[in-house]
Amino acid sequence: MAPAFEQIPEDTETQTETPHSAPNTVNNDGQVDYKSRVTVVGSGNWGSVAAKLIASNTLKLYSFHDEVRMWVFEETLQSGEKLTDVINRINENVKYLPGIKLGKNVIADPDLENAVKDANMLVFVTPHQFMEGICKRLVGKVREDAEAISLIKGMEVKMEGPCMISTLISEHLGINCSVLMGANIANEIAVEKFSEATVGYRDKREIAEQWVRLFSTPYFLVTPVQDVEGVELCGTLKNVVAIAAGFVDGLDMGNNTKAAIMRIGLREMIAFSKLLFPSVRDSTFFESCGVADVITTCLGGRNRKVAEAFAKNGGKRSFDELEAEMLQGQKLQGVSTAREVYEVLSHRGWLELFPLFSTVHEICVGRLPPSAIVEHSEQKPKLPVF
Amino acid sequence: MAPAFEQIPEDTETQTETPHSAPNTVNNDGQVDYKSRVTVVGSGNWGSVAAKLIASNTLKLYSFHDEVRMWVFEETLQSGEKLTDVINRINENVKYLPGIKLGKNVIADPDLENAVKDANMLVFVTPHQFMEGICKRLVGKVREDAEAISLIKGMEVKMEGPCMISTLISEHLGINCSVLMGANIANEIAVEKFSEATVGYRDKREIAEQWVRLFSTPYFLVTPVQDVEGVELCGTLKNVVAIAAGFVDGLDMGNNTKAAIMRIGLREMIAFSKLLFPSVRDSTFFESCGVADVITTCLGGRNRKVAEAFAKNGGKRSFDELEAEMLQGQKLQGVSTAREVYEVLSHRGWLELFPLFSTVHEICVGRLPPSAIVEHSEQKPKLPVF
Repeated sequence: MAPAFEQIPEDTETQTETPHSAPNTVNNDGQVDYKSRVTVVGSGNWGSVAAKLIASNTLKLYSFHDEVRMWVFEETLQSGEKLTDVINRINENVKYLPGIKLGKNVIADPDLENAVKDANMLVFVTPHQFMEGICKRLVGKVREDAEAISLIKGMEVKMEGPCMISTLISEHLGINCSVLMGANIANEIAVEKFSEATVGYRDKREIAEQWVRLFSTPYFLVTPVQDVEGVELCGTLKNVVAIAAGFVDGLDMGNNTKAAIMRIGLREMIAFSKLLFPSVRDSTFFESCGVADVITTCLGGRNRKVAEAFAKNGGKRSFDELEAEMLQGQKLQGVSTAREVYEVLSHRGWLELFPLFSTVHEICVGRLPPSAIVEHSEQKPKLPVF
Repeated sequence: MAPAFEQIPEDTETQTETPHSAPNTVNNDGQVDYKSRVTVVGSGNWGSVAAKLIASNTLKLYSFHDEVRMWVFEETLQSGEKLTDVINRINENVKYLPGIKLGKNVIADPDLENAVKDANMLVFVTPHQFMEGICKRLVGKVREDAEAISLIKGMEVKMEGPCMISTLISEHLGINCSVLMGANIANEIAVEKFSEATVGYRDKREIAEQWVRLFSTPYFLVTPVQDVEGVELCGTLKNVVAIAAGFVDGLDMGNNTKAAIMRIGLREMIAFSKLLFPSVRDSTFFESCGVADVITTCLGGRNRKVAEAFAKNGGKRSFDELEAEMLQGQKLQGVSTAREVYEVLSHRGWLELFPLFSTVHEICVGRLPPSAIVEHSEQKPKLPVF
């Protein structure tokens, strides 16, 4: 279904675009180029859906070159063919998004450096543990005037604080990096069900607007927010809340309890984000990346599902075991994020301020039973959220 | 399950209560009475659960008389017995909360005036359409120093603006009225599953704290907020959002879409409340009465359920018909609230500012198909919510 939203012009580029809105106008050869070139770094499930969204827009919008290059980690399929060859032949990522046409203008490229070298708009959408390696390989290889956006949920939370993926990209590559997060389950967007997303940007509004144009479709509504850290932390921390919600489901405690736990989780997300980054805005949590993503992730999603199974088994089967059984090798973001958040909290002496976050981790590692999610996670608020 | 929350003292009245914290100390006979007397006006499903919560606390807390009087609209049961007689004999509301003991100190009273005459704490929890009649009957019959609290979700939204139930009570009876709202499904609280609630109060913090003490149990966590209108509007408007969520479920549109619609609904709740009452606080919407109640109501609840059936039938069977079939005579709050909100919006020229609220009404009355909930309800925000 593709409702006609008045506010999203489908083919009115002359009204909405002006040359200055493009991030830059000179390419590596010194030639003036008013059009932006987009490369998607990553080709998993969400990366493929992102490429599809983008490719439908670059065809329509004047300020983008049609071609969307997609870096694909090369694999040989059971048929003996290479994944990139199949994608380029039938315009479909048969391994990670089967049955969905990406668009003929999506070009799969197994060579990372080649894929990025001409692009001035870089979309990063790989598993977060690969990002540090990718960034190191890309030092000095991307255009100086390139703009990046990270769709990667999850981050490195270290003792001294979280290292945001957008910061990692910015620092390694010396370019500005925005983020796109939101209540978006890739497979639902792939079949064009309505959903929303939030672009978090640092200071340049015109860059944010260019990203919004690149991603928006009638069924995918993107809103820009000047709050990179807030948006990115939403995308990460919500997985911890989803683990808590899964415990409540597994204990069969009902909707009241689940709603209470989700609300407490949202408040801890806000408080944690604001303690780490005082610039984080309250209003960000009412965007798609905030409350809506918490809802989506706590209703569906693999973090919730495996946590439910964990609680049903009374914590007697480990997350590793359940993951292996239920997720065919995928890892749960929520369990590792809960551990990382716990490290930050304990390092800073904040454990008592975040009973839900800390209890999720203690349940995950077996120090507390799943039922502790209710017993421990609610206390009278000690933090002024507003 | 009754987790031990550190912050809710169960039997430490000497630490937490002082005589001045009681709303008043002189009864109708002119005698000093440091203890408050509580009457619950209403005895339906939620009223009975409220009486149970309260009765467990009045037994424990020094500042309340043990007895909790409950006004019961008298009915003759199939057995030929009167409902009040059965409640007083077996401490159970066999009609509206079967299987749950209310406590021996709950006294059912079929005489409204008698039930309220000695009470200085009045808990109103009737269907909202009865409140005007009840208020008229009680003029001059309640103690002048009484404090009221309304648990009634739903209100009269008239052309000139909404008439809040708390206002109705205050104006008719000349007493202060707080509200208690939240993500609480009566039957889940009855079996002592963990949930939360929010007390909205006008100015007297010590009154709010007395209400919090009266309702709080280890499984029912109550937080006071100085924002009567915000809390009360949350309780009402969330039912309109639940209708929208039900449409999405009926159209089988997935979790992304549902989360997006819930988020947009929450934003319209905030915007509507703040336009009507500029004193309404953003933070109220992060309390149990806000985001948590929206979640609970959109996950379960009868508004969602009937709206789902309505959409599944493509709007061809009316809400009246589906209500009659599915709810055994209960009425949907959401459909009538949507109509009342629509009247306010159209009277004030705000229809375009609230696409979700107005679309819900137009779908309910058959002017738009259920699928319009997505096509019409999202527009670029025109209202600054913060």
